[in-house]
Amino acid sequence: MQKIKFEEFPIILHISNRHIHITKEHFEQLFGKDIQLTKYKDLLQPGQFAANETVDILGPKGEFRNVRIVGPFRNSTQIEISRTDSFVLGIRPPIRDSGNIKGSEGVVVGGPKGKIELKEGCIIAQRHIHFFVEDAKSLGIEDKDLVKILVGKSKGRETIFSDVLCRVSKNYATECHLDTDEANAAMADNGDIVYILEKIRY
Amino acid sequence: MQKIKFEEFPIILHISNRHIHITKEHFEQLFGKDIQLTKYKDLLQPGQFAANETVDILGPKGEFRNVRIVGPFRNSTQIEISRTDSFVLGIRPPIRDSGNIKGSEGVVVGGPKGKIELKEGCIIAQRHIHFFVEDAKSLGIEDKDLVKILVGKSKGRETIFSDVLCRVSKNYATECHLDTDEANAAMADNGDIVYILEKIRY
Repeated sequence: MQKIKFEEFPIILHISNRHIHITKEHFEQLFGKDIQLTKYKDLLQPGQFAANETVDILGPKGEFRNVRIVGPFRNSTQIEISRTDSFVLGIRPPIRDSGNIKGSEGVVVGGPKGKIELKEGCIIAQRHIHFFVEDAKSLGIEDKDLVKILVGKSKGRETIFSDVLCRVSKNYATECHLDTDEANAAMADNGDIVYILEKIRY
Repeated sequence: MQKIKFEEFPIILHISNRHIHITKEHFEQLFGKDIQLTKYKDLLQPGQFAANETVDILGPKGEFRNVRIVGPFRNSTQIEISRTDSFVLGIRPPIRDSGNIKGSEGVVVGGPKGKIELKEGCIIAQRHIHFFVEDAKSLGIEDKDLVKILVGKSKGRETIFSDVLCRVSKNYATECHLDTDEANAAMADNGDIVYILEKIRY
């Protein structure tokens, strides 16, 4: 396979606002057994969708209303917020890769039929790139590689983000995910193009 | 004078939360003529202080209560917010160097005695370093130079911020200012050390 240079490979940017992935069991506790999780719109990642249904996230200091559920249901409930959000809620979630929630922060989730007090599940998502397996191969990227990326060129806040985690799967579409703090620090918008600058070698 | 290398010159970081610089006239409109602007605590920049008095900032979509005044009084009123804040308020302020507010965003400022509808004055501060003149000289930095800085090393979100504006004065203490979006994107805290990596040459 022909090798592609990083600077010849534009990657589309998705900015993740605070959201929740939820188990079917938790959803039914919050919304009732007769309510379906319904699609608001498809996301670029195959099978993933923003739902019409939203929850409230409550911390010891503050709260956010109408936090969107991202479907489909998952095996554990996970809340992803920005560090700015964490100060509003009054909690200190760790930076984690999606799915790695052991010992993460607790938070209260509210819905029309009740509240759930989660002992863990709230994280600040580690910035990452989803790679379709063929794209990763052509770039020489392997699952769990860390890279530096260039964001926000010519917007007055050019930024190089290090510690960007690469995740590779045949079930992924190639797409970079930053949270709102990261995007706003670089004046980046949804759909912007980012570039890998280099792999990080430790 | 002996030249110092960038990597040998640690610079202390100050994280600017949303705040307002205000004219005496506007302060009197908001608080009344008999009220004094009083010091809560000194800032590192000589003569600058966080005041006990706060205002409300109101936008078309949302508002922030208890936004701190930074004294002393200035010749024009200037509100500095993050881009995250701007989405809450529902306004689109430009990225600007402090003092450059012509054509910036309007916002309503509220106090105990009334409200002021500002036609301009609200900006997102360009990230910057205040340099004491002797420090700048020893580093080969001149007023209005742009540099890249390294922030958040070993915190899981290492970041290189480009487009960092250098301002040089005998009235400044050497200190880097980032806003909350930038700091949170890098997991940076008040008092962290940042380093210049290089001057940007256009």
